[in-house]
Parts: sequence; structure tokens; C-alpha cells
Amino acid sequence: MSGPAGSLGVFANATAVVANGGDGSGRYSAKIHSGWDIGGNANGGYLMAIAGRAMSEAVGRPPLSLTAHYLSPGPAGPCEIDVDVVRTGRRLATARATMTVEGKPILELLGTFGDQVPDDGPTFRREEPLDVMPFENCTPMRPAAASGGPALMDRLACRLCPEDDGFRRGEPTGDPTMRGWFAFVAEEPVDAIGLLLAADAFPPPIFNSDIPMAWVPTIELTVHVRGNPAPGPLRVAFRCRFIHDGLLDEEGEIWDSAGVLVAQSRQLSLMPRQVISDV
Amino acid sequence: MSGPAGSLGVFANATAVVANGGDGSGRYSAKIHSGWDIGGNANGGYLMAIAGRAMSEAVGRPPLSLTAHYLSPGPAGPCEIDVDVVRTGRRLATARATMTVEGKPILELLGTFGDQVPDDGPTFRREEPLDVMPFENCTPMRPAAASGGPALMDRLACRLCPEDDGFRRGEPTGDPTMRGWFAFVAEEPVDAIGLLLAADAFPPPIFNSDIPMAWVPTIELTVHVRGNPAPGPLRVAFRCRFIHDGLLDEEGEIWDSAGVLVAQSRQLSLMPRQVISDV
Repeated sequence: MSGPAGSLGVFANATAVVANGGDGSGRYSAKIHSGWDIGGNANGGYLMAIAGRAMSEAVGRPPLSLTAHYLSPGPAGPCEIDVDVVRTGRRLATARATMTVEGKPILELLGTFGDQVPDDGPTFRREEPLDVMPFENCTPMRPAAASGGPALMDRLACRLCPEDDGFRRGEPTGDPTMRGWFAFVAEEPVDAIGLLLAADAFPPPIFNSDIPMAWVPTIELTVHVRGNPAPGPLRVAFRCRFIHDGLLDEEGEIWDSAGVLVAQSRQLSLMPRQVISDV
Repeated sequence: MSGPAGSLGVFANATAVVANGGDGSGRYSAKIHSGWDIGGNANGGYLMAIAGRAMSEAVGRPPLSLTAHYLSPGPAGPCEIDVDVVRTGRRLATARATMTVEGKPILELLGTFGDQVPDDGPTFRREEPLDVMPFENCTPMRPAAASGGPALMDRLACRLCPEDDGFRRGEPTGDPTMRGWFAFVAEEPVDAIGLLLAADAFPPPIFNSDIPMAWVPTIELTVHVRGNPAPGPLRVAFRCRFIHDGLLDEEGEIWDSAGVLVAQSRQLSLMPRQVISDV
């Protein structure tokens, strides 16, 4: 699945996995790279991408639907992914996995894998893509070196819609929505594994609510991969729909440059508590 | 968790589980009852409810977010649920499980469990409940004995919105939406386990699209439990949002009589292929 190390893109390299003894069920080794974190803890989508790649290699197919439950933060360093292939069919394969750091489980995952089948059957689209300003008019996410923002943004060429930028000035818009464009640096293509990161790479939409900005502890994240992205930046929109009783959701949609919905995501999180001043 | 067998409601009895040797990780036995099926295969929400109950008993808390991947149909008869408690914390516990029939896995599950904390923190609601006609004006689902409909509908007191009833007359509305009311017979209360069934008990909304009615093979179903339902029928709405390339989603929201969103669901399914004439 991988060429010579030197030819790998930044993301492919940062999510590379090594099978300890052949493909299929078994243990995979990987490294949680520094620079993909928010305040020292690896981004949840980045961790899902590493584990998802191990599961994908175990079954020999890309993810269609992958769910991760977050048990503990992921510090930079070596990690292992124990993959258990539950079922292998003609069209679909199902696997579960546990990601551990120094023997401690940090992520538990369950997913079904299979190739996309473009142009197979009828099409229905309830919603058009959310309005997102053109890429050129959106604001590059500030790199960490320049401003103290999250290191993750050095690894990505994402842009945020200026209409959703209020939280950065301490002026949340009041609408928990984040829209913009997702891309890797150096135009590295985004495949199904990249979509797992894209589903969780933007600032939490709750930052634009009236709730003080704080670390958002994700309980669960599910990503449905709905297509192979065409080249170019991906249009993304993340929204909280319901916040109450100490829990909140976050729904995301990702469209490619051809206007195809290539991923849907949803997560359930605990209400943020530990207020942070710098995001 | 259960009183004398005679005092159990119909649903509680049909989803009862027995721990083989104490609570916690281990094997639970249960029975897939006949009469909770569509054409001989147990309803997917019903299977999730049985497995979810075993997981819930293992961790001693109700589900907050539960994902099931469907491996094989579930015929009536004995089944086992092997539960593995992955992590137990103060607020949350995470467990995975495999449901088997005669040693063959039919469902693989992963979930996080915890008690609801009503009135904890701020509230935001992007959407009001979808319009659903009052309970009295909605159509009781036809019982199997009377009309050859699915046996499942004998076990429930659900009602379907007349505006979404077209598919039953061979006149789909063209809008893949199903709205109505969910209730058990004999006013058995709906708890978090009951919500797992409620999330998948209605006819698939795709039946109201222009795609011929056929068995809809669910790949994955995730339910987020967002509250403890107040007494009374639950207002439900299920919609396909995106159908393309041989895959379709189905989103559901469930509100209680107090107007609180008590569950959200989403599933990813394969395009239906085997046309059925009677639903």
C-alpha cells in the first residue's frame, strides 16, 4: 500500500502502519507523530485515521463506515492497533480494533469496509451543500509557529469561512457552525483515510456558541465514506444540532470539487468544562 | 434489573437477558422471539435492543451511544451476547459485544454507557421537531393477523403519518420520509433500551422514494440516547438525506411528549435490490 518512504505525502507518512506478521487480524504498529495535536493531545480524527488505516490494510479495502469511541487522550509516540477481522464477505468486510499506547487503550473502533461503486443505482439528494465562500475568500488557518494556534494547522492547508471566524476574536457568532475548506499541504490527495481526519480537523462548532471555549471531550465519532474525492480542496460544514443535558452532537458533511457528498460524520461529546483561552 | 417474569412488559420480556455467571464482561444468553420480525428475520432495532440490554447490564448503566454493524440476519431462537467491558470510568463506561446464533456472529456492537444528567448545562436546539400530525389523526400500523403486514407491528402501538402512507398503496410520495408515533402495546414505558428499537421500527423512508420497495440491508446503525423519555407516545421522524453510488443514509429523531429530543439515529445501508411486494 505504500511506496518508498521518501515518496509518501506528509499525511500518509504520519499515519503509516506496519503489520507485525502479515495482513489480516493481528497487531499493527504505528507512531502518533507530534504536530498533529491540540495542546499536546493528538487530534481525534488523526487517531481514527491511523487506526482506520490499520483496519483497512487488515481487510484490504477502504472504510465505508467507521466508529471510534475515545477512551483516553493520545500522546505523541509509538502506538499499537490490534485488529480483529470479524467477517469478510464478497462486497463488505467488518473489523474491530483497539488502539493502545504503552498497553493502555485509547481508542476502540468498529467499522465496515468496502470499495466504492460509483454510478451504481439511483440518486437522491435532500440538501444542497451548505453555502461556503470560495476557497480564495476564506481565511487560512493560522500556523502554530506564527501565532500559537494548534500545531495541527501546520500539517493542513485548511481555510475557514470568515463568517464563522468570530470565535477567534472572542466574538462567537452565536451559531455553532464551522464551514470552510479542507486540504493537505503540498496538494497531497485526500483518500478515504484522509476523510477520517477531515471529519474532525476543524475547530469544534460549539466554539461559535455562547458557551465558553473549552476542550470538547468526544465520546464517539462515526464517519460514513460516501465517495472517492475528486482532486482539489474539500468543502466542509460542521454544525451542532442539539445541545442539552450535558451532551452535544456535531454533524459534518464533506463535498468534493465535483459537488459529490464524499463523507458524513457525526459525533457525541460531553459538554466542554475546562475553559481554554487559546485555540 | 428485572422483577418477577410475570410483571415484565411485552418488550422487556422479549429482550430479557441472563448473565452466565455474574455481571461484567462475559457471556449473556437471550432469545430472539418470533413476532419481532420482517419476513422471518428479526428487526434490526430489536436485535440491537437485546444486545444493548446485555451490554447495559454488564456495565450497570444505560446506553448513551451505541453502534451495531449487521453481519447476518437473525432468525428466531436462542442467541448469545459476548460482552467485553473495555473501560469503566466515573461518568462513562465503554463496552463491545458480539451477538451470535448457533455460534455464528450476526451483530457486532460498540457503545458508551452512562446515566443521563437532566438540566446539566446550557441548551441549544437548531431544529424544532418535524411536523407530525397528532397521534389521534395518524394511522395505526396494520397488525399482521389482519393484513399480512410485518409481525413486528403486533408488538407495537405505532402510528404512521397519513402524509407518509403512500407507499402502502403503491403510491410513494417521492419524499423518502416516514413520520409518526412510536409506542409499545399496553402503555409499556419506553426507556433507553426501548429507544434502540424505536430508532429502527418504522418502514424504511426509502419506501417513499421512487425506488422499488425491497429489503434494505443495513450496514451500520448508530443511536445516541439524549434523554429519558417522558410518558406517552414518542414523536418520530426518519429521512433519507443522500442516496447515491449504491449506498443510502437514514437519519432519525425521536422526541418525547415534553418536546425533548430523546434520541438521534443514523444508519448506512446498501441499496435495496430484492424487490418485495408486501411490506
